[in-house]
Formats: sequence, structure tokens, C-alpha cells
Amino acid sequence: MGEPMLLKIGQTVFPRDDSLVIIDRRLFPHQVEEIVCLDYESVAQAIEVMAVQGAGDIAVTAGYGLWLAAREIENRGELTPDQVYAHMDKARQRLVTTRPTGFHIAILLKNIMAKTNWNQYPWSNQILSQIDTIIEKQDTRSRLTGEWAETLLRDGDVVLTHCFPGAGLLYMFIKARQNGKQVTAICTETRPYLQGARLTAWAVSELGIPVTLITDNMAAYCMSQGMVNKLITAADRIAMDGTVANKVGTLQLAIAAGYHSIPFYVLGYGGPDRNTKSAAEIPIELRDPEEVVSFNGVSITGAKVQGFYPAFDLTPANLVTAIVTDRGILSSSDVGSYWSNSAR
Amino acid sequence: MGEPMLLKIGQTVFPRDDSLVIIDRRLFPHQVEEIVCLDYESVAQAIEVMAVQGAGDIAVTAGYGLWLAAREIENRGELTPDQVYAHMDKARQRLVTTRPTGFHIAILLKNIMAKTNWNQYPWSNQILSQIDTIIEKQDTRSRLTGEWAETLLRDGDVVLTHCFPGAGLLYMFIKARQNGKQVTAICTETRPYLQGARLTAWAVSELGIPVTLITDNMAAYCMSQGMVNKLITAADRIAMDGTVANKVGTLQLAIAAGYHSIPFYVLGYGGPDRNTKSAAEIPIELRDPEEVVSFNGVSITGAKVQGFYPAFDLTPANLVTAIVTDRGILSSSDVGSYWSNSAR
Repeated sequence: MGEPMLLKIGQTVFPRDDSLVIIDRRLFPHQVEEIVCLDYESVAQAIEVMAVQGAGDIAVTAGYGLWLAAREIENRGELTPDQVYAHMDKARQRLVTTRPTGFHIAILLKNIMAKTNWNQYPWSNQILSQIDTIIEKQDTRSRLTGEWAETLLRDGDVVLTHCFPGAGLLYMFIKARQNGKQVTAICTETRPYLQGARLTAWAVSELGIPVTLITDNMAAYCMSQGMVNKLITAADRIAMDGTVANKVGTLQLAIAAGYHSIPFYVLGYGGPDRNTKSAAEIPIELRDPEEVVSFNGVSITGAKVQGFYPAFDLTPANLVTAIVTDRGILSSSDVGSYWSNSAR
Repeated sequence: MGEPMLLKIGQTVFPRDDSLVIIDRRLFPHQVEEIVCLDYESVAQAIEVMAVQGAGDIAVTAGYGLWLAAREIENRGELTPDQVYAHMDKARQRLVTTRPTGFHIAILLKNIMAKTNWNQYPWSNQILSQIDTIIEKQDTRSRLTGEWAETLLRDGDVVLTHCFPGAGLLYMFIKARQNGKQVTAICTETRPYLQGARLTAWAVSELGIPVTLITDNMAAYCMSQGMVNKLITAADRIAMDGTVANKVGTLQLAIAAGYHSIPFYVLGYGGPDRNTKSAAEIPIELRDPEEVVSFNGVSITGAKVQGFYPAFDLTPANLVTAIVTDRGILSSSDVGSYWSNSAR
């Protein structure tokens, strides 16, 4: 089996000449279509329409937005350092506001802004090299997270997932196979964008792991029939009180898992957000209700029906069995231990 | 506001000349397309593909299947009473097996077979007149169930529903408005067939009741935000131990409602099935997995991904606050009281 396309971000988001190419994930797995971004505004829009998804991948894509923002002014001739910084900060702000629930964009862009030497031209090359480092770091982080998660799996386990939990999930399955564990997956389709069907189920099946797809309302039934041993999702943000913000539907699955005494593990990659104390500080992105009342552009209900589309939900720490990070497995009631964990 | 098309079965399933017309509910609300059945086999197939749905409506439709079966042999000249009965019983068996989870088909067809005088020609007219009586009885039952349900509603309530709970739900909203209660609805879309979007949300909106549509994974989030006061669904079968078999997803919603201390009421219409002692005796219909891995005929995942499609699930009595019937409101721990209830 080859590597699934979604294991590494460089396969779906990459610079080419003066542009950023984003392979539109909304069309996966049946179409491979490029979105070519020539400026940071197009990158922001591609993130907004969810041509790219997943907290880490969104952050890297936004980083490339800063790279394009730098290129835009590099071609404009002499600017004062203040003018350069003002332009770049405007781009940063635009990119940060694309998806408010995750916290990785804000941190990644802030770091790039801080680490770039604005007196040393060309800025774009500095930014590109920072992004390369970040991508490598994220890949290592995903692999380590996946390997820690794998230690929780037993031979014969069926893992239920929701949305696309990122490369960590794929590394987990790869490691399980290396260790001779027969592990299979059940994926919720994850309406309205069907990331579970289009991304997760596809990517896992490309690894040669048996995958079963269900609609979002079938998970509790599968649990009640003893078909699920573990629930594993990612998180767009973990607060310091252990609250997990993730794709809407996660809360419902966590409650059902708790009811059936099935452990719920969250792939927490680089740990919680130190700047978010509790659930109350996590904004839930409300997306266009049109995305709920239609499917592939075709209306599925009456004209007088309103849609409602919260893109994420908040799962309290007591419904989370443990949080799996690149540094080890944390108790959801003590996520701050991420920075003191001896496993780092 | 006019009557919604789905309030009375005669608007979507009706005899015309020598045929049964079924308005295909899979195309609602945007297309009104007739399926014209000339024999009981076509009726069975229309039920199987879910051109009609809802335990009571399916049963009536199957009853019309018997009517067509009778017409088929009435035109064939002289047959012995044994031959007539054998033909009719074969039709009955075919129709019963279309949808195994509900219990109304079996009872309705058994009653028609028992009440028809096979020595009195033409049988088809007898059957038709029995069906007319059944439809009237079902309508009364739906109205009474809806009116009992309405007594549970308070001004300002938001009712979360799943799939299409039948005319009882519509009568409930009609009565609430008559009583001056401002009540609104949230409907889950109910994948994969989207009955919640296409039937419930539409029908309720046609009553002039404000309706919000969500995907199936958003219900717990809405509950966690205090947006839901009551969960109300129907049941395809209620066992004597209070187990509720209903459209897959009901269990998940019931668990989430329990977690959030939101009452869950089941519209039980004509009560539990006296012949089903417990959950173990209810077969869960498994439908074609193709219906999960594709949407409107378009594949939504990779070719190596399997689908799984249980059409119903089982909610234990302790997750059900009460069962609302035409005879009154029953405790889910004592559903047998349906036959002794003083409210009848």
C-alpha cells in the first residue's frame, strides 16, 4: 500500500512558482482539482470555504498566505519597515479570522511574524523556510501522536472516528499494522461536508485497513451492538480545563461512548491551548445555514425551513478518557501536565 | 395555512381505477411524482425502496397491496376458495416481509385476511372498504395522539424531532397553535434518506410553525446550548418491556437527551405490540449499504470503503420519559397499561 495522499500536507497544499496550490478537499476522493492562490486573500477564502481542513493543515495553509502577502510587497519596490509590517499584519489578521474555533492559525502566524527579520530581504524566503520547518515538526508530531495512540489499541479493536482526525490517526493505523495488530475502523460520514466519508474512510482504506462507513446517526447503534471498542477523534482546540472543541457531532459521540462505557481518546497533537482557560473562551464558528439546507447545491427541504450550522461543539473533560499528544498520553483533568510530562 | 400534504395518507397513497398511486416521498418536497402500482408486487417494491414510509402509512399501503392481489384473481375467472386464499396469503407474506422492524403491516394484513368473507365476491370491494375504515381510525388515532402530546408542551417550547414522526406530530403543532402556545421545531435531517429534511421540516413549515433544520450530528450541541426543551419521535414498534424501535439515530438522541435532562416522548399511537415481549424479539432491518456510501446516486467515498445501514435502533425504556398514545400518556415502564388505561 502506498502512502495515503492525506498523510502529509505537502501532497495537497504546496507552493508552485508565485502561487500556492491547494488540492480542493471538498472534491475528494473522486476529483483532484487545484485551487491556485496568487494572493493571501485567495488563501483566506480557500480556508473559509473549507478547501483545506484540519487545525494543523489550516494553520500551515494560512502560513503560506503570509508568504504570498510578503511576495506581494516584495514586487512593489521600496517600502518602509513600518509599511511592510502594517501590510503583513493586515494579512495576518485576515487569515486568523477565517476559522475562529481552532487556535493553531493564530499561534503559527504570530510565530512567523515574530521570527521574520523584517530588515532582511526577501522576507518571503524566510517565511517559506519557517513553514518548511513547521511542516516537518507537524509531521513528527503527528507520527508521535499516532504512535502513542497505537499503544492504546488491542488486537481486534474497532476504532470509531469522526470527521478527519488528521495524520495522527493514519500513523496510528500504520504502527498498529507494523505491530501485527488487526485493527479496523468505522467512520461517521460527518455531515454536512462529509469529511469522514470523503477523507478519513478513503485515507484509511488506502492503507489497506478495513473501513466501514456509517451516517452520523448510526454510531450509538453500533456501540449498542458491541461493534466499537474505542472512539478516537482529533481536537481543534483543547482548553486548559480539558474541554475539547472539535467538529460538531463529537459531543454526541462522546456522550454515547460514555453511556456504553467505551473509552474516548482525543488526538491532541501539540497539546492544549495555554491561552484558553475554559470552554467559555472558545468561540464556536457558525457557518452558512445554506450548507445544511442543501446538498451538493440541491435543496433538500422546503423553502420556509431555516438551517443552523454550528461547525464545532464542546465536549467537557469528564467525557474524555484521555488526550493523546506527541509527548504522551494525558489525563483530560490535567492537560497542563503536557508541559511537565516526563514522556516529552 | 392549508393542511400539509402529509397530514392524511389519502393525499399520497390512493387507489385510482385499477391501480394504486403512491406519491414518491423520496422526491419530496420538490417533486411530486406518481408511482403507479398495478399489482401487489409493485406495491411491495415501492414499500421496500421507501417511496412510502412511517409504520402506519406503510401498513395501509400494504393493505392496498392485498386489494390489488384480490383484483388480480377476480379477473382470472373461477377459482376454488382454497386457491383464492392461497393466492391472497402469498401476497400477504410478500407484503409483510418488505420491512421487518415495524409490526403494523403484519397486524393490518392479518386483520384484513381474517375479516374478508372469501365466499362473498368481489373480495376487493370488501378489502377497500376495510382500508377506508382503517384510514379513518388511523387519522383519529393520530389526532388523539397529537392532542395528548400537546398537553405536554409549554408556551415557548422548542421540540426536537427525528425522521418523520407521522401525522401525530402535525396534529400536536396544530393543537398547540389553537391553544395559543408558541412552539417551534428543530428537525434532524435524518440521513441517509433525509426524511427529517424532506418530510418533517417541510410539513411542519407548511403549518406556519418556525422550523430549523440541523444535520444529525448537531443535536447534542443544540441541547447543550439550551435550545431544546423536548425530544419527540415516533416508534416503528414498542415492545412490552418499553423498548422503542425507531429510525436509526433515535437511540443516540435519547442518550443525549438523558444526558442533558431533556424529556424524551415517543408518539406511540395505537400502543405497544402485545406480541413482542422485549427488545430481543425486534428484528433490525439492514438495508443496502450502497445507500450509505452514495448520495443521490453519487459515490461519497473511496471504492474500498464498505457501508453499513441499520435502518432502526432500539432505545431502552429507561431513556424514554413517556409514551404518548391515542388513549393517553403511558409510563415507558408500564406500557401494558395501554389496554387498561382509564383515558381510553
